[in-house]
Amino acid sequence: MEYRGVDVHRDQAFSGGPAPDAPVRAGIPDHGRIPKYYDVASRLAAMLDELGEGGTLPTERDLATRFEVSRATIRRALSDLLLQGRVRRYGRSTVVAGPKLEQPMSLMSSAEGMRWQGEMPSRSLIGLDRLPAGPALGAQLRIAASDPVWHVERLLLADDERVGLESLYVPVERFPDLQRDSEPGSPFHRYVRDRLGVRFATANEKIETVLASPREALLIGTPSALPMLLLHRISYDSEGSPVERVRSLYRGDRFSFTTQPATDTSLPYATWS
Amino acid sequence: MEYRGVDVHRDQAFSGGPAPDAPVRAGIPDHGRIPKYYDVASRLAAMLDELGEGGTLPTERDLATRFEVSRATIRRALSDLLLQGRVRRYGRSTVVAGPKLEQPMSLMSSAEGMRWQGEMPSRSLIGLDRLPAGPALGAQLRIAASDPVWHVERLLLADDERVGLESLYVPVERFPDLQRDSEPGSPFHRYVRDRLGVRFATANEKIETVLASPREALLIGTPSALPMLLLHRISYDSEGSPVERVRSLYRGDRFSFTTQPATDTSLPYATWS
Repeated sequence: MEYRGVDVHRDQAFSGGPAPDAPVRAGIPDHGRIPKYYDVASRLAAMLDELGEGGTLPTERDLATRFEVSRATIRRALSDLLLQGRVRRYGRSTVVAGPKLEQPMSLMSSAEGMRWQGEMPSRSLIGLDRLPAGPALGAQLRIAASDPVWHVERLLLADDERVGLESLYVPVERFPDLQRDSEPGSPFHRYVRDRLGVRFATANEKIETVLASPREALLIGTPSALPMLLLHRISYDSEGSPVERVRSLYRGDRFSFTTQPATDTSLPYATWS
Repeated sequence: MEYRGVDVHRDQAFSGGPAPDAPVRAGIPDHGRIPKYYDVASRLAAMLDELGEGGTLPTERDLATRFEVSRATIRRALSDLLLQGRVRRYGRSTVVAGPKLEQPMSLMSSAEGMRWQGEMPSRSLIGLDRLPAGPALGAQLRIAASDPVWHVERLLLADDERVGLESLYVPVERFPDLQRDSEPGSPFHRYVRDRLGVRFATANEKIETVLASPREALLIGTPSALPMLLLHRISYDSEGSPVERVRSLYRGDRFSFTTQPATDTSLPYATWS
Protein backbone atom coordinates (compact mmCIF):
# COMPACT_ATOMS: atom_id res chain seq x y z
CA MET A 1 0.00 0.00 0.00
CA GLU A 2 1.32 3.43 -0.81
CA TYR A 3 1.52 6.51 1.30
CA ARG A 4 -1.29 8.80 0.30
CA GLY A 5 -1.67 12.52 0.59
CA VAL A 6 1.74 13.02 2.15
CA ASP A 7 4.97 14.00 0.51
CA VAL A 8 6.97 10.98 1.52
CA HIS A 9 9.86 11.40 -0.81
CA ARG A 10 11.95 13.79 1.22
CA ASP A 11 15.12 11.91 0.43
CA GLN A 12 17.61 14.15 2.12
CA ALA A 13 20.34 11.62 2.57
CA PHE A 14 22.49 12.44 -0.38
CA SER A 15 21.33 15.95 -1.04
CA GLY A 16 22.84 17.95 1.76
CA GLY A 17 20.04 17.24 4.25
CA PRO A 18 20.58 16.23 7.85
CA ALA A 19 22.69 13.13 8.30
CA PRO A 20 22.37 12.41 12.00
CA ASP A 21 25.33 10.69 13.51
CA ALA A 22 23.04 9.25 16.15
CA PRO A 23 19.36 8.36 15.89
CA VAL A 24 18.55 11.52 17.80
CA ARG A 25 17.55 14.05 15.16
CA ALA A 26 18.86 17.54 15.42
CA GLY A 27 16.37 19.75 17.23
CA ILE A 28 16.17 22.44 14.61
CA PRO A 29 12.53 23.27 13.85
CA ASP A 30 11.27 22.53 10.37
CA HIS A 31 8.64 25.20 10.87
CA GLY A 32 8.65 28.03 13.36
CA ARG A 33 11.50 30.16 14.63
CA ILE A 34 14.45 28.81 16.58
CA PRO A 35 14.64 30.54 19.95
CA LYS A 36 18.04 32.21 20.29
CA TYR A 37 18.88 30.41 23.56
CA TYR A 38 18.20 27.09 21.81
CA ASP A 39 20.56 27.89 18.98
CA VAL A 40 23.20 28.84 21.56
CA ALA A 41 22.52 25.63 23.53
CA SER A 42 23.07 23.58 20.34
CA ARG A 43 26.37 25.34 19.68
CA LEU A 44 27.38 24.94 23.35
CA ALA A 45 26.56 21.22 23.09
CA ALA A 46 29.08 20.92 20.26
CA MET A 47 31.61 22.67 22.49
CA LEU A 48 30.92 20.14 25.27
CA ASP A 49 31.81 17.28 22.94
CA GLU A 50 35.13 18.96 22.18
CA LEU A 51 35.91 19.64 25.83
CA GLY A 52 35.10 16.07 26.85
CA GLU A 53 33.80 14.76 30.19
CA GLY A 54 35.08 16.74 33.15
CA GLY A 55 36.18 19.69 31.02
CA THR A 56 35.45 23.14 32.42
CA LEU A 57 33.40 25.63 30.40
CA PRO A 58 34.48 29.25 29.91
CA THR A 59 32.72 31.80 32.11
CA GLU A 60 29.28 33.19 31.21
CA ARG A 61 30.95 36.46 30.31
CA ASP A 62 33.41 34.76 27.94
CA LEU A 63 30.64 32.68 26.38
CA ALA A 64 28.48 35.77 25.87
CA THR A 65 31.37 37.48 24.07
CA ARG A 66 32.19 34.43 22.01
CA PHE A 67 28.58 33.80 20.87
CA GLU A 68 27.73 37.51 20.61
CA VAL A 69 24.62 37.19 22.78
CA SER A 70 23.57 38.54 26.17
CA ARG A 71 24.57 36.82 29.40
CA ALA A 72 20.85 36.15 30.01
CA THR A 73 20.75 34.08 26.80
CA ILE A 74 23.87 32.18 27.88
CA ARG A 75 22.30 31.52 31.28
CA ARG A 76 19.09 30.23 29.71
CA ALA A 77 21.08 27.93 27.41
CA LEU A 78 23.24 26.66 30.29
CA SER A 79 20.15 26.10 32.40
CA ASP A 80 18.72 23.89 29.64
CA LEU A 81 21.96 21.91 29.39
CA LEU A 82 21.94 21.57 33.19
CA LEU A 83 18.37 20.19 33.21
CA GLN A 84 19.38 17.77 30.46
CA GLY A 85 22.29 16.58 32.55
CA ARG A 86 24.81 17.63 29.88
CA VAL A 87 26.70 19.89 32.30
CA ARG A 88 27.02 20.03 36.08
CA ARG A 89 27.84 22.86 38.46
CA TYR A 90 30.65 22.63 40.98
CA GLY A 91 30.61 25.83 42.96
CA ARG A 92 31.10 28.50 40.32
CA SER A 93 32.46 26.17 37.64
CA THR A 94 30.35 24.54 34.97
CA VAL A 95 31.74 21.19 33.93
CA VAL A 96 30.93 18.73 31.13
CA ALA A 97 28.92 15.84 32.63
CA GLY A 98 29.40 12.16 31.83
CA PRO A 99 26.59 9.98 30.51
CA LYS A 100 23.53 9.37 32.71
CA LEU A 101 23.79 6.49 35.16
CA GLU A 102 21.85 3.42 34.09
CA GLN A 103 19.54 1.68 36.52
CA PRO A 104 18.26 -1.69 35.32
CA MET A 105 14.47 -1.98 35.64
CA SER A 106 14.54 -5.45 37.04
CA LEU A 107 14.09 -6.69 40.53
CA MET A 108 17.31 -8.58 40.94
CA SER A 109 19.73 -6.01 39.70
CA SER A 110 18.10 -2.93 41.17
CA ALA A 111 17.75 -4.58 44.54
CA GLU A 112 20.86 -6.60 45.02
CA GLY A 113 23.30 -4.91 42.78
CA MET A 114 22.78 -1.20 42.49
CA ARG A 115 25.85 -0.74 40.28
CA TRP A 116 26.30 2.47 38.40
CA GLN A 117 29.18 2.60 35.94
CA GLY A 118 31.94 2.95 38.47
CA GLU A 119 30.06 5.14 40.95
CA MET A 120 29.69 3.61 44.38
CA PRO A 121 26.06 3.45 45.50
CA SER A 122 25.04 3.84 49.13
CA ARG A 123 22.04 4.81 51.24
CA SER A 124 21.65 7.23 54.10
CA LEU A 125 18.74 7.03 56.53
CA ILE A 126 16.39 9.99 56.81
CA GLY A 127 13.70 8.46 58.97
CA LEU A 128 11.94 5.33 60.12
CA ASP A 129 8.25 5.74 60.95
CA ARG A 130 5.43 3.45 61.90
CA LEU A 131 2.15 4.44 60.27
CA PRO A 132 -1.27 2.95 59.56
CA ALA A 133 -1.26 1.70 55.96
CA GLY A 134 -4.37 3.54 54.84
CA PRO A 135 -6.65 2.16 52.12
CA ALA A 136 -4.43 2.51 48.99
CA LEU A 137 -1.22 1.12 50.47
CA GLY A 138 -3.23 -1.46 52.44
CA ALA A 139 -4.76 -2.80 49.22
CA GLN A 140 -1.34 -3.01 47.55
CA LEU A 141 0.20 -4.88 50.49
CA ARG A 142 -3.04 -6.86 51.11
CA ILE A 143 -3.40 -5.73 54.72
CA ALA A 144 -6.13 -3.74 56.47
CA ALA A 145 -6.07 0.04 56.17
CA SER A 146 -5.58 0.27 59.92
CA ASP A 147 -2.68 -2.22 59.99
CA PRO A 148 0.69 -0.60 60.71
CA VAL A 149 3.49 -0.37 58.17
CA TRP A 150 7.11 0.64 58.54
CA HIS A 151 8.11 3.57 56.39
CA VAL A 152 11.85 3.75 55.81
CA GLU A 153 12.98 6.87 53.98
CA ARG A 154 16.57 6.95 52.68
CA LEU A 155 18.70 9.10 50.47
CA LEU A 156 20.32 7.32 47.53
CA LEU A 157 23.94 8.30 47.01
CA ALA A 158 26.37 7.76 44.16
CA ASP A 159 29.95 8.38 45.27
CA ASP A 160 28.51 10.30 48.25
CA GLU A 161 26.55 12.63 45.99
CA ARG A 162 22.81 12.70 46.62
CA VAL A 163 21.04 11.37 43.52
CA GLY A 164 17.70 10.09 44.78
CA LEU A 165 15.23 9.44 47.58
CA GLU A 166 13.70 6.09 48.41
CA SER A 167 10.59 5.35 50.48
CA LEU A 168 10.06 1.75 51.51
CA TYR A 169 6.76 0.55 53.04
CA VAL A 170 6.45 -2.93 54.58
CA PRO A 171 3.87 -4.50 56.92
CA VAL A 172 4.96 -4.37 60.58
CA GLU A 173 3.32 -7.75 61.12
CA ARG A 174 5.70 -9.44 58.70
CA PHE A 175 8.77 -7.48 59.83
CA PRO A 176 8.20 -6.86 63.57
CA ASP A 177 11.88 -6.31 64.36
CA LEU A 178 12.84 -4.19 61.37
CA GLN A 179 13.53 -1.16 63.51
CA ARG A 180 15.88 -3.12 65.73
CA ASP A 181 17.78 -5.30 63.36
CA SER A 182 17.81 -3.95 59.83
CA GLU A 183 20.77 -2.10 58.35
CA PRO A 184 19.81 1.38 57.23
CA GLY A 185 22.65 1.53 54.74
CA SER A 186 21.99 -1.83 53.10
CA PRO A 187 19.48 -2.89 50.48
CA PHE A 188 16.26 -4.06 52.10
CA HIS A 189 16.31 -7.15 49.90
CA ARG A 190 19.48 -8.38 51.55
CA TYR A 191 17.92 -8.02 55.03
CA VAL A 192 14.81 -9.91 53.92
CA ARG A 193 16.89 -12.70 52.42
CA ASP A 194 19.50 -13.05 55.14
CA ARG A 195 17.33 -12.58 58.21
CA LEU A 196 14.02 -14.03 57.10
CA GLY A 197 14.98 -16.41 54.33
CA VAL A 198 12.49 -14.76 51.98
CA ARG A 199 13.46 -14.18 48.37
CA PHE A 200 11.76 -11.66 46.14
CA ALA A 201 10.37 -13.52 43.17
CA THR A 202 8.94 -10.80 41.00
CA ALA A 203 7.74 -7.20 40.96
CA ASN A 204 5.35 -4.76 39.37
CA GLU A 205 7.13 -1.59 38.35
CA LYS A 206 5.90 1.73 37.04
CA ILE A 207 8.00 4.70 35.99
CA GLU A 208 6.94 8.28 35.39
CA THR A 209 8.42 11.75 35.34
CA VAL A 210 7.50 14.26 38.05
CA LEU A 211 8.81 17.54 39.39
CA ALA A 212 10.50 17.36 42.76
CA SER A 213 8.40 18.77 45.60
CA PRO A 214 10.07 21.47 47.70
CA ARG A 215 10.76 18.93 50.48
CA GLU A 216 12.23 16.40 48.05
CA ALA A 217 14.31 19.05 46.30
CA LEU A 218 15.64 20.14 49.69
CA LEU A 219 16.54 16.60 50.72
CA ILE A 220 18.19 15.69 47.41
CA GLY A 221 19.68 19.14 46.98
CA THR A 222 18.25 19.96 43.56
CA PRO A 223 16.30 22.89 42.15
CA SER A 224 12.60 22.08 42.62
CA ALA A 225 11.83 22.49 38.92
CA LEU A 226 14.15 19.60 38.04
CA PRO A 227 12.34 16.74 36.30
CA MET A 228 12.78 13.52 38.26
CA LEU A 229 12.17 9.88 37.40
CA LEU A 230 9.78 8.29 39.88
CA LEU A 231 9.86 4.50 40.11
CA HIS A 232 7.03 2.68 41.88
CA ARG A 233 7.54 -0.95 42.79
CA ILE A 234 5.56 -3.69 44.52
CA SER A 235 7.70 -6.78 45.11
CA TYR A 236 6.27 -10.25 45.66
CA ASP A 237 7.66 -13.39 47.24
CA SER A 238 7.48 -16.79 45.55
CA GLU A 239 3.98 -17.34 46.97
CA GLY A 240 2.76 -14.20 45.20
CA SER A 241 2.41 -12.27 48.45
CA PRO A 242 3.37 -8.60 48.35
CA VAL A 243 6.43 -7.93 50.50
CA GLU A 244 7.20 -4.27 49.95
CA ARG A 245 5.96 -1.12 48.30
CA VAL A 246 8.76 1.18 47.15
CA ARG A 247 8.70 4.70 45.81
CA SER A 248 12.09 5.79 44.45
CA LEU A 249 12.79 9.22 43.11
CA TYR A 250 15.88 9.65 40.91
CA ARG A 251 17.40 12.84 39.51
CA GLY A 252 16.26 12.99 35.90
CA ASP A 253 19.50 14.66 34.83
CA ARG A 254 21.57 11.80 36.26
CA PHE A 255 19.62 8.59 35.59
CA SER A 256 18.14 6.45 32.89
CA PHE A 257 16.38 3.11 33.29
CA THR A 258 17.12 0.12 31.13
CA THR A 259 15.54 -3.22 30.37
CA GLN A 260 17.66 -6.00 28.96
CA PRO A 261 16.63 -8.90 26.76
CA ALA A 262 15.45 -11.67 29.03
CA THR A 263 16.03 -14.53 26.62
CA ASP A 264 19.39 -15.62 25.30
CA THR A 265 22.00 -13.44 26.93
CA SER A 266 24.76 -15.04 24.87
CA LEU A 267 23.62 -13.08 21.83
CA PRO A 268 25.63 -9.92 21.21
CA TYR A 269 23.05 -7.31 22.16
CA ALA A 270 24.01 -3.68 22.02
CA THR A 271 24.64 -1.71 25.17
CA TRP A 272 23.64 1.91 25.55
CA SER A 273 26.68 3.55 26.96
CA MET B 1 22.34 -4.49 64.19
CA GLU B 2 20.88 -1.26 65.49
CA TYR B 3 20.60 2.10 63.85
CA ARG B 4 23.35 4.29 65.21
CA GLY B 5 23.67 8.01 65.43
CA VAL B 6 20.28 8.67 63.95
CA ASP B 7 17.02 9.36 65.70
CA VAL B 8 15.11 6.46 64.24
CA HIS B 9 12.24 6.41 66.68
CA ARG B 10 10.00 9.00 65.07
CA ASP B 11 6.92 6.83 65.58
CA GLN B 12 4.30 9.19 64.26
CA ALA B 13 1.67 6.65 63.41
CA PHE B 14 -0.47 6.94 66.46
CA SER B 15 0.56 10.37 67.62
CA GLY B 16 -1.05 12.66 65.12
CA GLY B 17 1.78 12.46 62.58
CA PRO B 18 1.25 12.05 58.86
CA ALA B 19 -0.86 9.05 57.92
CA PRO B 20 -0.50 8.88 54.17
CA ASP B 21 -3.41 7.33 52.41
CA ALA B 22 -1.10 6.43 49.56
CA PRO B 23 2.61 5.64 49.69
CA VAL B 24 3.30 9.07 48.31
CA ARG B 25 4.24 11.19 51.31
CA ALA B 26 2.85 14.67 51.55
CA GLY B 27 5.31 17.14 50.08
CA ILE B 28 5.42 19.46 53.06
CA PRO B 29 9.03 20.29 53.97
CA ASP B 30 10.29 19.09 57.32
CA HIS B 31 12.83 21.87 57.22
CA GLY B 32 12.74 25.05 55.24
CA ARG B 33 9.81 27.25 54.24
CA ILE B 34 6.90 26.06 52.12
CA PRO B 35 6.63 28.27 49.04
CA LYS B 36 3.18 29.86 48.93
CA TYR B 37 2.39 28.53 45.44
CA TYR B 38 3.18 25.02 46.66
CA ASP B 39 0.80 25.33 49.58
CA VAL B 40 -1.87 26.56 47.16
CA ALA B 41 -1.11 23.69 44.75
CA SER B 42 -1.59 21.18 47.59
CA ARG B 43 -4.94 22.72 48.49
CA LEU B 44 -5.92 22.84 44.81
CA ALA B 45 -5.00 19.15 44.50
CA ALA B 46 -7.51 18.35 47.25
CA MET B 47 -10.11 20.35 45.31
CA LEU B 48 -9.34 18.28 42.18
CA ASP B 49 -10.12 15.08 44.06
CA GLU B 50 -13.49 16.52 45.08
CA LEU B 51 -14.30 17.72 41.56
CA GLY B 52 -13.37 14.37 40.00
CA GLU B 53 -12.06 13.62 36.51
CA GLY B 54 -13.41 15.98 33.89
CA GLY B 55 -14.60 18.54 36.45
CA THR B 56 -13.97 22.21 35.57
CA LEU B 57 -12.01 24.42 37.94
CA PRO B 58 -13.19 27.87 38.95
CA THR B 59 -11.53 30.79 37.16
CA GLU B 60 -8.13 32.11 38.27
CA ARG B 61 -9.89 35.18 39.63
CA ASP B 62 -12.29 33.06 41.72
CA LEU B 63 -9.46 30.86 42.98
CA ALA B 64 -7.39 33.91 43.95
CA THR B 65 -10.31 35.23 45.97
CA ARG B 66 -11.02 31.88 47.57
CA PHE B 67 -7.40 31.19 48.59
CA GLU B 68 -6.68 34.85 49.38
CA VAL B 69 -3.57 34.93 47.20
CA SER B 70 -2.56 36.81 44.06
CA ARG B 71 -3.52 35.59 40.62
CA ALA B 72 0.22 35.14 39.91
CA THR B 73 0.40 32.60 42.76
CA ILE B 74 -2.67 30.78 41.41
CA ARG B 75 -1.08 30.69 37.95
CA ARG B 76 2.18 29.27 39.31
CA ALA B 77 0.26 26.59 41.26
CA LEU B 78 -1.87 25.71 38.20
CA SER B 79 1.23 25.57 36.04
CA ASP B 80 2.74 23.01 38.43
CA LEU B 81 -0.45 20.92 38.37
CA LEU B 82 -0.42 21.16 34.57
CA LEU B 83 3.18 19.91 34.34
CA GLN B 84 2.24 17.07 36.70
CA GLY B 85 -0.65 16.12 34.45
CA ARG B 86 -3.18 16.68 37.25
CA VAL B 87 -5.14 19.22 35.19
CA ARG B 88 -5.48 19.91 31.49
CA ARG B 89 -6.39 23.04 29.56
CA TYR B 90 -9.19 23.09 27.03
CA GLY B 91 -9.26 26.56 25.52
CA ARG B 92 -9.84 28.79 28.54
CA SER B 93 -11.11 26.05 30.86
CA THR B 94 -8.93 24.09 33.25
CA VAL B 95 -10.23 20.59 33.77
CA VAL B 96 -9.33 17.77 36.18
CA ALA B 97 -7.23 15.20 34.27
CA GLY B 98 -7.60 11.43 34.51
CA PRO B 99 -4.73 9.16 35.50
CA LYS B 100 -1.68 8.98 33.24
CA LEU B 101 -1.86 6.49 30.40
CA GLU B 102 0.17 3.34 31.01
CA GLN B 103 2.52 2.03 28.36
CA PRO B 104 3.89 -1.44 29.05
CA MET B 105 7.68 -1.59 28.70
CA SER B 106 7.72 -4.81 26.79
CA LEU B 107 8.18 -5.50 23.17
CA MET B 108 5.01 -7.40 22.46
CA SER B 109 2.55 -5.09 24.06
CA SER B 110 4.08 -1.79 23.05
CA ALA B 111 4.47 -2.91 19.48
CA GLU B 112 1.40 -4.95 18.71
CA GLY B 113 -1.07 -3.70 21.20
CA MET B 114 -0.62 -0.06 22.01
CA ARG B 115 -3.72 -0.03 24.25
CA TRP B 116 -4.23 2.88 26.56
CA GLN B 117 -7.13 2.56 28.99
CA GLY B 118 -9.91 3.20 26.54
CA GLU B 119 -8.09 5.79 24.44
CA MET B 120 -7.68 4.80 20.80
CA PRO B 121 -4.04 4.89 19.69
CA SER B 122 -3.04 5.85 16.18
CA ARG B 123 -0.08 7.20 14.23
CA SER B 124 0.23 10.01 11.75
CA LEU B 125 3.14 10.26 9.32
CA ILE B 126 5.40 13.29 9.47
CA GLY B 127 8.13 12.16 7.13
CA LEU B 128 9.98 9.30 5.54
CA ASP B 129 13.65 9.93 4.80
CA ARG B 130 16.55 7.89 3.54
CA LEU B 131 19.80 8.73 5.31
CA PRO B 132 23.26 7.25 5.81
CA ALA B 133 23.29 5.50 9.18
CA GLY B 134 26.33 7.25 10.58
CA PRO B 135 28.66 5.55 13.09
CA ALA B 136 26.43 5.36 16.21
CA LEU B 137 23.27 4.10 14.52
CA GLY B 138 25.34 1.90 12.21
CA ALA B 139 26.92 0.15 15.20
CA GLN B 140 23.52 -0.39 16.81
CA LEU B 141 22.04 -1.85 13.61
CA ARG B 142 25.33 -3.60 12.74
CA ILE B 143 25.67 -1.97 9.33
CA ALA B 144 28.32 0.32 7.90
CA ALA B 145 28.15 4.02 8.76
CA SER B 146 27.66 4.78 5.07
CA ASP B 147 24.82 2.25 4.63
CA PRO B 148 21.42 3.85 4.13
CA VAL B 149 18.61 3.63 6.67
CA TRP B 150 14.98 4.58 6.44
CA HIS B 151 13.88 7.13 9.00
CA VAL B 152 10.12 7.11 9.57
CA GLU B 153 8.89 9.88 11.85
CA ARG B 154 5.33 9.68 13.12
CA LEU B 155 3.12 11.43 15.62
CA LEU B 156 1.57 9.18 18.27
CA LEU B 157 -2.07 9.98 18.91
CA ALA B 158 -4.48 8.96 21.66
CA ASP B 159 -8.08 9.63 20.66
CA ASP B 160 -6.71 12.00 17.98
CA GLU B 161 -4.80 14.04 20.57
CA ARG B 162 -1.05 14.32 19.96
CA VAL B 163 0.74 12.58 22.82
CA GLY B 164 4.12 11.62 21.40
CA LEU B 165 6.59 11.46 18.54
CA GLU B 166 8.22 8.29 17.22
CA SER B 167 11.35 7.95 15.08
CA LEU B 168 11.99 4.56 13.55
CA TYR B 169 15.32 3.70 11.87
CA VAL B 170 15.72 0.49 9.83
CA PRO B 171 18.35 -0.64 7.30
CA VAL B 172 17.26 -0.01 3.71
CA GLU B 173 18.99 -3.22 2.67
CA ARG B 174 16.66 -5.32 4.81
CA PHE B 175 13.53 -3.31 3.96
CA PRO B 176 14.10 -2.12 0.37
CA ASP B 177 10.39 -1.58 -0.34
CA LEU B 178 9.38 0.05 2.92
CA GLN B 179 8.59 3.33 1.24
CA ARG B 180 6.30 1.64 -1.27
CA ASP B 181 4.45 -0.92 0.77
CA SER B 182 4.40 -0.11 4.47
CA GLU B 183 1.38 1.42 6.19
CA PRO B 184 2.24 4.73 7.77
CA GLY B 185 -0.61 4.42 10.29
CA SER B 186 0.17 0.88 11.42
CA PRO B 187 2.71 -0.47 13.86
CA PHE B 188 5.96 -1.28 12.08
CA HIS B 189 5.99 -4.68 13.81
CA ARG B 190 2.86 -5.75 11.98
CA TYR B 191 4.43 -4.82 8.61
CA VAL B 192 7.59 -6.75 9.43
CA ARG B 193 5.62 -9.80 10.50
CA ASP B 194 3.02 -9.82 7.73
CA ARG B 195 5.20 -8.82 4.80
CA LEU B 196 8.53 -10.34 5.69
CA GLY B 197 7.63 -13.12 8.08
CA VAL B 198 10.08 -11.77 10.66
CA ARG B 199 9.07 -11.75 14.32
CA PHE B 200 10.67 -9.53 16.90
CA ALA B 201 12.12 -11.76 19.57
CA THR B 202 13.47 -9.35 22.13
CA ALA B 203 14.57 -5.76 22.68
CA ASN B 204 16.89 -3.51 24.61
CA GLU B 205 15.01 -0.58 26.08
CA LYS B 206 16.15 2.54 27.87
CA ILE B 207 13.97 5.28 29.32
CA GLU B 208 14.93 8.76 30.45
CA THR B 209 13.35 12.14 31.01
CA VAL B 210 14.20 15.03 28.70
CA LEU B 211 12.81 18.44 27.86
CA ALA B 212 11.11 18.71 24.48
CA SER B 213 13.17 20.57 21.91
CA PRO B 214 11.42 23.51 20.22
CA ARG B 215 10.81 21.39 17.10
CA GLU B 216 9.40 18.49 19.12
CA ALA B 217 7.24 20.78 21.23
CA LEU B 218 5.89 22.32 18.04
CA LEU B 219 5.09 18.95 16.49
CA ILE B 220 3.46 17.52 19.62
CA GLY B 221 1.88 20.83 20.56
CA THR B 222 3.29 21.18 24.07
CA PRO B 223 5.14 23.93 25.88
CA SER B 224 8.86 23.32 25.31
CA ALA B 225 9.62 23.20 29.03
CA LEU B 226 7.39 20.13 29.48
CA PRO B 227 9.30 17.10 30.78
CA MET B 228 8.95 14.18 28.37
CA LEU B 229 9.66 10.49 28.69
CA LEU B 230 12.09 9.35 26.00
CA LEU B 231 12.13 5.63 25.22
CA HIS B 232 14.99 4.17 23.20
CA ARG B 233 14.60 0.69 21.78
CA ILE B 234 16.66 -1.70 19.68
CA SER B 235 14.61 -4.73 18.64
CA TYR B 236 16.13 -8.05 17.60
CA ASP B 237 14.83 -10.96 15.57
CA SER B 238 15.12 -14.55 16.75
CA GLU B 239 18.65 -14.78 15.28
CA GLY B 240 19.77 -11.93 17.50
CA SER B 241 20.06 -9.52 14.56
CA PRO B 242 18.99 -5.93 15.19
CA VAL B 243 15.89 -5.05 13.13
CA GLU B 244 15.02 -1.53 14.21
CA ARG B 245 16.18 1.38 16.31
CA VAL B 246 13.31 3.40 17.77
CA ARG B 247 13.27 6.69 19.60
CA SER B 248 9.85 7.46 21.11
CA LEU B 249 9.06 10.64 22.94
CA TYR B 250 5.95 10.66 25.16
CA ARG B 251 4.34 13.57 27.02
CA GLY B 252 5.48 13.23 30.63
CA ASP B 253 2.20 14.63 31.92
CA ARG B 254 0.21 11.95 30.09
CA PHE B 255 2.26 8.76 30.28
CA SER B 256 3.81 6.27 32.63
CA PHE B 257 5.65 3.08 31.75
CA THR B 258 5.00 -0.23 33.45
CA THR B 259 6.67 -3.60 33.72
CA GLN B 260 4.63 -6.60 34.68
CA PRO B 261 5.76 -9.75 36.45
CA ALA B 262 6.97 -12.13 33.79
CA THR B 263 6.51 -15.33 35.74
CA ASP B 264 3.20 -16.73 36.90
CA THR B 265 0.51 -14.40 35.62
CA SER B 266 -2.18 -16.36 37.42
CA LEU B 267 -1.09 -14.80 40.70
CA PRO B 268 -3.19 -11.82 41.74
CA TYR B 269 -0.67 -9.03 41.22
CA ALA B 270 -1.74 -5.50 41.90
CA THR B 271 -2.46 -3.10 39.08
CA TRP B 272 -1.54 0.55 39.24
CA SER B 273 -4.68 2.29 38.10
